[in-house]
Amino acid sequence: MSIIELIERKRDGGVLTAAEIEWIIARYSADAIPDYQMSSLLMAVFKEGLDHEELSAWTDAMLHSGEVLDFSHVAAPKVDKHSTGGVGDKVSIPLAPMVAACGVAVPMMSGRGLGHTGGTLDKLETIPGFRTALDPPEFRAILEKTGLVLAGQSETLVPADRRIYALRDATGTVPSIPLISSSIMSKKLAEGLDALVLDVKVGRGAFMKTLEDARSLAETMVGIGAVRGTPVTALLTDMSQPLGNEIGNACEISESVDVLRGEGPADLTEITYRLGEEMLLMGGITADRSDARARLEEAVSSGAALEKLVEVVVAQDGDPSVLEDTSLLAKAPNETVHLASRSGVLARCDALDLGIAALRLGAGREKKEDTIDPGVGIMVPVGIGDTITEGQPLAVLRWADQALLGEAMGLVERAFQIGQEPVAAPPLIYGEVR
Amino acid sequence: MSIIELIERKRDGGVLTAAEIEWIIARYSADAIPDYQMSSLLMAVFKEGLDHEELSAWTDAMLHSGEVLDFSHVAAPKVDKHSTGGVGDKVSIPLAPMVAACGVAVPMMSGRGLGHTGGTLDKLETIPGFRTALDPPEFRAILEKTGLVLAGQSETLVPADRRIYALRDATGTVPSIPLISSSIMSKKLAEGLDALVLDVKVGRGAFMKTLEDARSLAETMVGIGAVRGTPVTALLTDMSQPLGNEIGNACEISESVDVLRGEGPADLTEITYRLGEEMLLMGGITADRSDARARLEEAVSSGAALEKLVEVVVAQDGDPSVLEDTSLLAKAPNETVHLASRSGVLARCDALDLGIAALRLGAGREKKEDTIDPGVGIMVPVGIGDTITEGQPLAVLRWADQALLGEAMGLVERAFQIGQEPVAAPPLIYGEVR
Repeated sequence: MSIIELIERKRDGGVLTAAEIEWIIARYSADAIPDYQMSSLLMAVFKEGLDHEELSAWTDAMLHSGEVLDFSHVAAPKVDKHSTGGVGDKVSIPLAPMVAACGVAVPMMSGRGLGHTGGTLDKLETIPGFRTALDPPEFRAILEKTGLVLAGQSETLVPADRRIYALRDATGTVPSIPLISSSIMSKKLAEGLDALVLDVKVGRGAFMKTLEDARSLAETMVGIGAVRGTPVTALLTDMSQPLGNEIGNACEISESVDVLRGEGPADLTEITYRLGEEMLLMGGITADRSDARARLEEAVSSGAALEKLVEVVVAQDGDPSVLEDTSLLAKAPNETVHLASRSGVLARCDALDLGIAALRLGAGREKKEDTIDPGVGIMVPVGIGDTITEGQPLAVLRWADQALLGEAMGLVERAFQIGQEPVAAPPLIYGEVR
Repeated sequence: MSIIELIERKRDGGVLTAAEIEWIIARYSADAIPDYQMSSLLMAVFKEGLDHEELSAWTDAMLHSGEVLDFSHVAAPKVDKHSTGGVGDKVSIPLAPMVAACGVAVPMMSGRGLGHTGGTLDKLETIPGFRTALDPPEFRAILEKTGLVLAGQSETLVPADRRIYALRDATGTVPSIPLISSSIMSKKLAEGLDALVLDVKVGRGAFMKTLEDARSLAETMVGIGAVRGTPVTALLTDMSQPLGNEIGNACEISESVDVLRGEGPADLTEITYRLGEEMLLMGGITADRSDARARLEEAVSSGAALEKLVEVVVAQDGDPSVLEDTSLLAKAPNETVHLASRSGVLARCDALDLGIAALRLGAGREKKEDTIDPGVGIMVPVGIGDTITEGQPLAVLRWADQALLGEAMGLVERAFQIGQEPVAAPPLIYGEVR
C-alpha cells in the first residue's frame, strides 16, 4: 500500500477500504507515516468527508490503537454521557451521581477546557485533593465500589486520537464532522459502555453553530454506535446563551451541588433530568420515561444523589466538606457588577462572548499549557426573554487580576442586548436523534 | 499572523494576501513553519486553488527565496524554452543550439527524468564528460562565450521550490495547476530571461491529459509572465504518441543530432522549428515568422546549429566526437523487435505505455535516487495513421537485463493497436496561448 496513492484517492473524492484505513492509523501510530502525510490526508478528509463504512473503519482503527476497557463483570448497566461542549455546561457533575444513585454505572472520562468552553476535569479539580488522573486498576476499583468514577482520559485509551487530534489542532482540520465524530466515539466506545447519551450543543457558544450541523454530527455519531451495536441517543440542546447561571470552575461545582439539592436554575436542572431520563431508559433501569423522571427526582429529594457525589469525591481523595459548604470553594477576591443600562426585554445573552470573557479572566485556557484560575468566573442571573429593569445586574464578574478585567468587561457589555419588543426564550432542546 | 488561521481561510475558499503568502514562503524556507502545516495548506490550495493575485504573490515569493540571475550585460536577447514533459521529448537539445546560432542567448536550466517522462540532463549526460552541474560564475561564463548553456537547476535558485516540490511529491499535491505554474515560472523567471516559450504537452503521455487542462495551465503561466512583464508564449502540442522515433537517453541525443543535420523525423523537426520561430520572434531577431523559419533552416543547412552544439559540449567538458559519429554513444547489447501481427492502419501508439516500457528497461527513474541506463531505450518507427503491413517492425527494444524485458514487452504490445478503418494522425500543435 502507498500512502501517497491513498491521499490522492481521498483527495479526488474516492473511497478508502477498511483495510486501508486500518493500515493508515496503525502506521501513523507506529511513526511509519510522517505527520506531513497525515495532515495532507486529514485536509483531504476535511474537504471530501468519509462515507459510513469509512467512518466506521476509521473509528474502529482509532479504538483499537489502544486499550479497550471491559466492565462486563460489573452487573449494572454502563452508560456515559458526552457533551460537545459549551459555556456553563456543568451537566456531567450533577448528572453522573444522580443516575448512579438510580443504579446506572457511570465510567465517565472527561476533558479539560480549551478556548471558550469549560472542561469537567478543571471544574472537579477545584474540589481540594480531588484526583482525576487514575490508572486503569484504580478507575475500575472506584467504579466497582461507588458505581461512578469521574476521571480524565487514560493515556492507554485511543492513543491514536491524542496524536491525530494534536495534529488536527495545528493544521486547520478540527471542524470536520467525520473527524470529530470518530474522535469522540472512539474514546467513548473504549470505555466499555452498554449505551451512550450525547448532548450535542447548538448555537453561538457551541462548536456547531447551526441546527443542521448539529443534527448531522449527532446522526453521524448515532450511526457509528449502531454499526458497533452500542445504542446511542443524542439530544440537540441550546447553546445560544450560557447553561445555568455560573461560568467558571469552582462556581460551577457550587451550582452543580445546587442542582443535586433541588435548588439549581431551571434550565440546567431540566437538561440534567432529560439526559438522566435517557440514561436510565437506555440502561434498562425502567422502560417508562415518567418513572425515570420520578426516580431521578427521588434521588435528589432523598439526598441520595448528593451523597453519591460525596462518595465518589471521597473515593478520589477529594475533600467533601466543600460540597456541604460550597462557600469554602475558591473564590476570586474582587467582584464587578455589570448593570442594565435601560429597561426592556433581554434579546441577547451571548454564550460565546461570555465564554471568552470568562476565559480572559483566567477561567479557561487559550493553549493546552495554560493554567486556570479556579476562583474567577462570571455569574449571569438573567436569560433571553427576561424582563429587565434599568440598573438590574446582568452579570457579576469575579476577578483576580485587574489587567485582565478590561477586555473581559468589553466582551460582557457586548454580550447583552436589551430591546423593547417581546422575545421568546430559545427552546432548551431542539430535538433528538436516536 | 497565524499559520493555522491562514490554512483555515484557504481551506474555506478564502483569499490570502500577498503579504501573507510572502510570510508563509519565507517562514517555511526558514523552518519556522513545519512540513505538516505546509502540507495541510498545500492540500487546501490543491482543493481551492489560487486566484490571479495569490498566484502572482506565490510565484514572486518563491522566486525571491533565492538568487535571481541577471544577464543584462549580455547584449543578445535571453530566451528559454520549457516543456511540461513527455515521451521522446528531446526538443531542447536541437532547439537551443539552433536558436543560439541565430543570435538568441539561451541560459537553459533543465531537469532530470522522473516516472515515464525523460529529462534533458539525463540525455545530455550520455555525452562522455559532459558536465551539467555548473556553478553560477561558470554558467555565466559559458553563456557569454557560446551564447548557450545547458545546465541543471542551480542550488541557489528558488530553494523554496525544491522543498515545496519534494513535500508535494510526498503528500499527493503535485497535479495542481497553480502549484505547477508557480513552480515552473518561479524557476524560469529566476534565469533572468527576456522572454519564455512554453511547450505544454497534452495527451496520455503528458502531465495534462486533456486540452482543457493544458490550456488552463498555459493561460495560468502566460498570466504569471504578464504580471511580471516577461512575455511568455505557450504552444499546446500533442503527446498522445511519442515525439520523434527514439525513447531513451543516448538514442535521443543521436536523434537530436539528426535534426541538426536536417535528417530528423518530421514531427520532431516541425515542433523544433515552430518553437524556434517563437524564440526568434520573442527575442526580436526578426518580426517575420517566415524569416524566422528561413534563419533556422539556414542554421541547420549551413551546419552552424550543429557547430553550436559542439561548441557548448566542448565548453561543458563533453567529448564532441560522439556528435560527429553517434554510433559511439552508449547502446544496450541486445535488441528485440516487436512486429505487427496483422496489416491495417495504426490506431494507437500510446506514449504513456511506451514511456513506462522504456522506464522499466532502465531508461528512467521510478524514484529520484534511481540511476538510469544510458544505452537502453525503444525505437518506434511508426505513428498513428500509418499504413501497417503484417510483420513490419512497430518497435525495437534495446535492453541490457533480461529480467526487465518481460514487463516492458507487455507494455509495448499493449501500446499498439491496428485497425481496418482509416485514422487521421493527431495534429502536432493544438493551439497557442500568448
